[in-house]
Amino acid sequence: MTAGNLTPGQLEQALRDIGARRYHNLHPFHRLLHDGRLTREQVQAWALNRYYYQSRIPAKDANLLARLPTPELRRTWRTRLVDHDGDGTGEGGIERWLHLTAALGLDRDYVVSTAGILPATRFAVDAYVHFVRDRPLLEAVASSLTELFAPTIIAERMSGMLANYDFIDRAGLAYFEARLTQAPADADFALSYVLENATTPERQQAVLAALRFKCQVLWAQLDALHFAYVEPGLIPPDAFVPAIGRS
Amino acid sequence: MTAGNLTPGQLEQALRDIGARRYHNLHPFHRLLHDGRLTREQVQAWALNRYYYQSRIPAKDANLLARLPTPELRRTWRTRLVDHDGDGTGEGGIERWLHLTAALGLDRDYVVSTAGILPATRFAVDAYVHFVRDRPLLEAVASSLTELFAPTIIAERMSGMLANYDFIDRAGLAYFEARLTQAPADADFALSYVLENATTPERQQAVLAALRFKCQVLWAQLDALHFAYVEPGLIPPDAFVPAIGRS
Repeated sequence: MTAGNLTPGQLEQALRDIGARRYHNLHPFHRLLHDGRLTREQVQAWALNRYYYQSRIPAKDANLLARLPTPELRRTWRTRLVDHDGDGTGEGGIERWLHLTAALGLDRDYVVSTAGILPATRFAVDAYVHFVRDRPLLEAVASSLTELFAPTIIAERMSGMLANYDFIDRAGLAYFEARLTQAPADADFALSYVLENATTPERQQAVLAALRFKCQVLWAQLDALHFAYVEPGLIPPDAFVPAIGRS
Repeated sequence: MTAGNLTPGQLEQALRDIGARRYHNLHPFHRLLHDGRLTREQVQAWALNRYYYQSRIPAKDANLLARLPTPELRRTWRTRLVDHDGDGTGEGGIERWLHLTAALGLDRDYVVSTAGILPATRFAVDAYVHFVRDRPLLEAVASSLTELFAPTIIAERMSGMLANYDFIDRAGLAYFEARLTQAPADADFALSYVLENATTPERQQAVLAALRFKCQVLWAQLDALHFAYVEPGLIPPDAFVPAIGRS
């Protein structure tokens, strides 16, 4: 814990340090996924569960947008809704994610129903949506700052998955391709907002805690996938059961 | 899914069937715990995390009580607050739980801080508190019906832990001793309420779903403990790290 006031540069460094130690690219499941050491069924389980996260991002962003005080701030944040939900002329991130689950052989209606996701996925994702709705606006914005660390993981994800899984092609990874430009723009704005508004030691500690919380949300999702589908492989009641031998 | 209207007897049976297939006494971690196959450190991790669940039960019950319409119903539900928080002349369940964590050698302030719990524990427990706050009252009451299944697990827990762990004595299990009489009384009331008020197929399906949800809340907590402290043993950042070699 840092007790005194940080300069904007120090605060940014403290935020980046959280990513360096807690972002989910450090999770063993991430390594297995991108080094090509998972079966098609295990990748299905990941994409199926991650769909729930994708599907709730617009709810998270709408909760945040509702609390922004000016048209300028709301317009900027609104681009996130367009990015995920599309705008009629182009499809959004959720639809792109469904390309990936389709490429993996998952039934669209089953994915959209979220009937087969792990309860732990639902609890973690809902915790994020509730955090953004219920905590002070500054903390809500800060919790989005995992996007600072996204470009690295996305680039690693795309190259690793293309190289290692013959059941995934570049079209299936359109979601990530779009995020390579969207995430940095979103992160730049959120970081500027946080650095401008976290002007007391209390606020600075709160934004650091918000980012740690968000890292926990992402990490816990990989914990649950690893537990159910890798080791020890204990799938909870009702969750997705891979079709054995289809790999 | 049952589509038609159930008699009260059929609905009760359907509720009990959920317990028979989804209650957390079926989880591998429960077996390890009560068959004496865990180390003292693993039992510490369980008690530490379970403290967070205990500590939030009065918040859950206060959310529910706030929505009950009559003094009679609120008086009945209020006994749960007394059971957990005490009444000045006698200690409550939360204090009794702290006897257990103390008997296990955990620092009281550390336990109460909840700084070392697994994020997945927090997400699951908070999901329960939010469910009771946000869902229709009938579903909120139904989600408490896991207490129908509690006497079995408590009896098994007490005898198993006393027989298998020399670091736990009967005084440390005072929480469970009290629950042996409290849980059935609570469950009887909640079951009567549910059977009287779940009078349409839609409501009946909703109460069954609420009980399944609650079973997921309990199950997910043992999943997270098993993953972090048994197999594969991947403890998330900041969570409790057992002192090696103190068993």
